[in-house]
Amino acid sequence: MKVGGQHFQTIWLKPKDECVVQLIDQRFLPHRFVIEEVSTVEQMATAIREMHVRGAGLIGASAGYGMYLATIQAAAARTIAGFDQHVASAAERLKATRPTAVNLSWALERQLRNIAEGKTPKEKIALALRTARLIAEEDKEHCRMIGQHGLKVIQQIARKKVEKPVNVLTHCNAGWLAFVDYGSATAPIYAAHDSGLPVHVWVAETRPRNQGSKLTAWELGEHGVPHTVIADSAAGHLMQHGEADLVIVGTDRTTYTGDVANKIGTYLKALAAKDNNVPFYVALPSSSFDWKMRDGLKEIPIEERGGEEIKHADGWLEGRQVEVCVAREGSPAANYGFDVTPRHLVTGLITERGVCEANEKSIRALFPGQAP
Amino acid sequence: MKVGGQHFQTIWLKPKDECVVQLIDQRFLPHRFVIEEVSTVEQMATAIREMHVRGAGLIGASAGYGMYLATIQAAAARTIAGFDQHVASAAERLKATRPTAVNLSWALERQLRNIAEGKTPKEKIALALRTARLIAEEDKEHCRMIGQHGLKVIQQIARKKVEKPVNVLTHCNAGWLAFVDYGSATAPIYAAHDSGLPVHVWVAETRPRNQGSKLTAWELGEHGVPHTVIADSAAGHLMQHGEADLVIVGTDRTTYTGDVANKIGTYLKALAAKDNNVPFYVALPSSSFDWKMRDGLKEIPIEERGGEEIKHADGWLEGRQVEVCVAREGSPAANYGFDVTPRHLVTGLITERGVCEANEKSIRALFPGQAP
Repeated sequence: MKVGGQHFQTIWLKPKDECVVQLIDQRFLPHRFVIEEVSTVEQMATAIREMHVRGAGLIGASAGYGMYLATIQAAAARTIAGFDQHVASAAERLKATRPTAVNLSWALERQLRNIAEGKTPKEKIALALRTARLIAEEDKEHCRMIGQHGLKVIQQIARKKVEKPVNVLTHCNAGWLAFVDYGSATAPIYAAHDSGLPVHVWVAETRPRNQGSKLTAWELGEHGVPHTVIADSAAGHLMQHGEADLVIVGTDRTTYTGDVANKIGTYLKALAAKDNNVPFYVALPSSSFDWKMRDGLKEIPIEERGGEEIKHADGWLEGRQVEVCVAREGSPAANYGFDVTPRHLVTGLITERGVCEANEKSIRALFPGQAP
Repeated sequence: MKVGGQHFQTIWLKPKDECVVQLIDQRFLPHRFVIEEVSTVEQMATAIREMHVRGAGLIGASAGYGMYLATIQAAAARTIAGFDQHVASAAERLKATRPTAVNLSWALERQLRNIAEGKTPKEKIALALRTARLIAEEDKEHCRMIGQHGLKVIQQIARKKVEKPVNVLTHCNAGWLAFVDYGSATAPIYAAHDSGLPVHVWVAETRPRNQGSKLTAWELGEHGVPHTVIADSAAGHLMQHGEADLVIVGTDRTTYTGDVANKIGTYLKALAAKDNNVPFYVALPSSSFDWKMRDGLKEIPIEERGGEEIKHADGWLEGRQVEVCVAREGSPAANYGFDVTPRHLVTGLITERGVCEANEKSIRALFPGQAP
């Protein structure tokens, strides 16, 4: 999407030097826009581990490009066995960066399988490049399709409204910064905006890491989409007063029965949507479905992070990035990363194949042949 | 309640010098405990306006003591007319500090009425002192009784639990810092803790001003009550997993039909409580009932504050209090101070006269003879 009027993805090959990968170093957003050049697998491992890049789709794409860089480095080996060993250890290194990211191991396995098909270093490098590009392109295409299907949802609501714009509420960042382009929850919003349909987005700040007020607000602002930042607590009040026409959020994992794990606070927004008859949609590429889990509340593990994140706020002061204490120092804090929204609170799932209901039958109809 | 092992109120007359009022200057909590000495009505007006003191009950008590200080200053006048004029203008000055605080004008009117009964300056000063003390003592007594009635609610839940402690979730600060002592929502918690019944409190941080993580955590910590700070968004997750046995919050205004206006985010917690069968109580002295409003959602005005509060976090860094930017600078933000929790989500109201249901019939049975 657009940054300062120019089109960007989150990750790309450097023009005229395809041995270098360029990516947006998201640690400094929204205050500074920094492009990082990555030319070794070690640098890519650092970028993933230290969260220069984050978000399911983007982690997968970064791992794909990281493996491509590994094959270039592996060409220094004297034997094919040495080449393969270098590639295998690169995959291990990348895998260790974010152990719970599903897209990471999926991208690494796909690369290892394809690289193995090559007979010579040159062939292997070419296969790795092709695979890295494919992973990124597929991610983009899935998000683009989510945008097209979600656009119809927004258009339907727009037709019922006398007054424009359509007010969409979102939580956390399921935007293009979490993927290669378009995003999941934001894709329908960008599609609507770009098609001339007026939209306005309520951006929940998303404590404690403020991915909403920092990343989503930055994305929308740079692309020119009208938006307003709110406290996470304000979502209910807005819905009570008819100020939100629909909710669209992303998901970290959705069971094949339609239970949705997403950033902590999503469940409260779903409850408020239900109580006020506001449609609540979850946008996801099918890679976010967990085809093994039936009961989201009982089965999805919820990451508990350090309490210090709750007691502090990370922000900018006089040009430097600092952490200030916003709580009583001596008090303990608990920091749950995600919650689970039960399927009965979800109006629909917006996937790359279309919109379905949040239940097993409807999900399986759209994605037949999935185990179990 | 206790601070560093010693008993404190939020406001009191200086021992051995009853021409001086002492109060806790809350602006520096939880990082510094500062006691301020106030000996003129001008100083008290500043303390209220600049929020050295805040909270319905405490604002009323501060206004009461402010009027007492005004009578001491008025004694310099040569005539009774001059005395009365000084007192009247002091009341005007105090009233202008926080125009929407109901307890403020109520306390001022009560003082003006009583001071008028005195014939001489000496009598007027004595009446003002007596009234100031009465206002503070009544506030304390109402909160103490809320504690006793709320204790029974906690005891009932404790009897049903196999494992201790009872987990209470609260939002914002409806603690003793908002009153003279005990607090409203915290009074049952302190009563339970002091009676030896083990309680643990989930303290929602309460963005954007963090009254939970700053003031409520400080109160509970100083008094020795086990507690844990959480993001506002985490309340639903805790209730889904049986980690909260009840919710107790305060209120800024409750209609005579039981609709509850309180800090933004209270409604979301009430929805989660309902969805998980967690009792949701509102603790209030009867002065917080609005006997004129029937429909809370339609009638209670919701204060909208500056958006900068949402985009910034106020905290401590290397010994100094600073504001850091936690959002995209160029994005607009909306800052709703309160929301309204409809009566059907409220399990009960804990008042100084006992616990009642959140409906007109039950409220009127406890407080007969109120208009309309």
